Amino acid sequence: MKKIMNQEENVMEETLQGFIDAYAADYERVDGVNGVIYRHMDPDKVSVITGGGAGHEPLFVGFAGKGLASGAAMGNVFAAPNPDTILEVTKAVENKAGVLYIYGNYAGDVLNFDMASELAEMEDIETRTVKVSDDVASASKENKEERRGIAGDVFVIKAAGAAADAGLSLDEVTRIAAKANENTHSIGVGISPGTSPGKKAPMFELPDNQIEFGLGIHGEKGIRRAEMMSADDLADEMLDHLLADAALESGDEAVILLNGLGSTTLMELLIVNQKVHKELLAKGITVYDTDVNSYCTTQEMGGFSITILKLDEELKTYYDAPAHSPYYHK
Amino acid sequence: MKKIMNQEENVMEETLQGFIDAYAADYERVDGVNGVIYRHMDPDKVSVITGGGAGHEPLFVGFAGKGLASGAAMGNVFAAPNPDTILEVTKAVENKAGVLYIYGNYAGDVLNFDMASELAEMEDIETRTVKVSDDVASASKENKEERRGIAGDVFVIKAAGAAADAGLSLDEVTRIAAKANENTHSIGVGISPGTSPGKKAPMFELPDNQIEFGLGIHGEKGIRRAEMMSADDLADEMLDHLLADAALESGDEAVILLNGLGSTTLMELLIVNQKVHKELLAKGITVYDTDVNSYCTTQEMGGFSITILKLDEELKTYYDAPAHSPYYHK
Repeated sequence: MKKIMNQEENVMEETLQGFIDAYAADYERVDGVNGVIYRHMDPDKVSVITGGGAGHEPLFVGFAGKGLASGAAMGNVFAAPNPDTILEVTKAVENKAGVLYIYGNYAGDVLNFDMASELAEMEDIETRTVKVSDDVASASKENKEERRGIAGDVFVIKAAGAAADAGLSLDEVTRIAAKANENTHSIGVGISPGTSPGKKAPMFELPDNQIEFGLGIHGEKGIRRAEMMSADDLADEMLDHLLADAALESGDEAVILLNGLGSTTLMELLIVNQKVHKELLAKGITVYDTDVNSYCTTQEMGGFSITILKLDEELKTYYDAPAHSPYYHK
Repeated sequence: MKKIMNQEENVMEETLQGFIDAYAADYERVDGVNGVIYRHMDPDKVSVITGGGAGHEPLFVGFAGKGLASGAAMGNVFAAPNPDTILEVTKAVENKAGVLYIYGNYAGDVLNFDMASELAEMEDIETRTVKVSDDVASASKENKEERRGIAGDVFVIKAAGAAADAGLSLDEVTRIAAKANENTHSIGVGISPGTSPGKKAPMFELPDNQIEFGLGIHGEKGIRRAEMMSADDLADEMLDHLLADAALESGDEAVILLNGLGSTTLMELLIVNQKVHKELLAKGITVYDTDVNSYCTTQEMGGFSITILKLDEELKTYYDAPAHSPYYHK
């Protein structure tokens, strides 16, 4: 697999430099670490910091912005940011009103964000944490707190960023983010592997007639290997898992995110979307809004995920609030 | 290559249905043809219609929107829209003030848009045409009018949509679009092929250590096959071609679009961007704005293009005007 890059050890430095070069009016680099902050935050409001391993672009850097996160702390490719990186980003954002950390639920991220939180406390910066755990394929419903975070990050960051922008307290922004996470369920499917920069071999092997149903965003095994199937059949089976798990019923309102994992085309995602809409309509579920894009990728992995955010009036308010970054708009 | 789809003959129908399902508040389908229009256009203003073969998503459908095109006429995958499709879209948009067709310069598109233009004239709808011809690898500088259109479509549609939104006459909108095209130069590089929906074989073959320098967006041959090179070397060589052709000099202002062709990751595009910025800075060229995204794709083709729009004060005005669609924001 060819990658368009220079030396492997410079991948993160050059990725962040390329981002800042492109969008310098709105973003700045945090000195000495792999961190980026949005320039235009209100000093009296809560800041949201997101982050995680790189390789999922535009997450996480592209989800700092207006009505979104105030900063992003990045690790190397598929590796958690270290505590010092998180701490430096925490010190670089407006932090008088407190800081909420939002990241996908992975052991390395949990360890390092928790350590950063302790370090921040020693500098009198108050922090809270919401771990995104939307992947229904990664643990049972009873063990929601063990589930991994995948594209659902988008909805949790969106809700928290809007709540912070509305001037809510740290505890309230945390409550809204936790509620968005509780109401967000995703499932993914992989059809071909991606390759990390500098690696020769793809992240996993998958025969040409097979798919990985329930695949994670680092190539983690899913629920089962299955024969390749039609877009309609895939959508049906994924929705069956999601709707049961999310306890969505006729009369409910939801937002849908169809998220491509890298090399899956927008055409394919739109084809899946027509079936998702047909099925939800048939079940009496109102689709309040839909987003078809590739926000949370795994290099050039083939496949996609479906994320459903179940709405209530409170979450709708925050979902509807304006937001923008170079890669997300509302 | 696996594709997430249903029957091959339904690909376009389901793609457009998926788009309308997702974005029904802003877009509607044109009855009976593969066309889409933006709902909120001013009846007294000029309409811009774009279109071409499908398979390049989000172009062209995703470039109908506020301050952009009023509608998109789509063919099947990599096939020009037929004259009837273009005519029906022309009749569906606001057309009292006239309609400007903007599309990439390919024989089939030229033939069919010209025929649609004659049919529209018979229905007393005035039309003009600007063919996008930004690909410097596809013909010599002296034969600019023979060049193909690639990602430069974005800048030409943007300028024309803004000029239409500003209330300019059909002739003036046409002049602005033609000027944007004159000032837009692109070059692409392919590192791996894409596959059309329903086809078993990829669009071309490329050994793992080679790239196609100057590749077109349907797999057209470029200037030469080359050994795979670093991101920095690629950027250097592409800029050499572009700057000479665009006659960009120290003191000039330009907008840069780094456009991924499908499976090339945002990380790779950002890495290229840091080198592009470094070189332009060294040459005294002011980068007025940068966009790093995948707007004009070729299924899951690997590679990217660099597009440079040379600005003057007039083009800057139209570039700066607000625009939005689900896939483009300004």
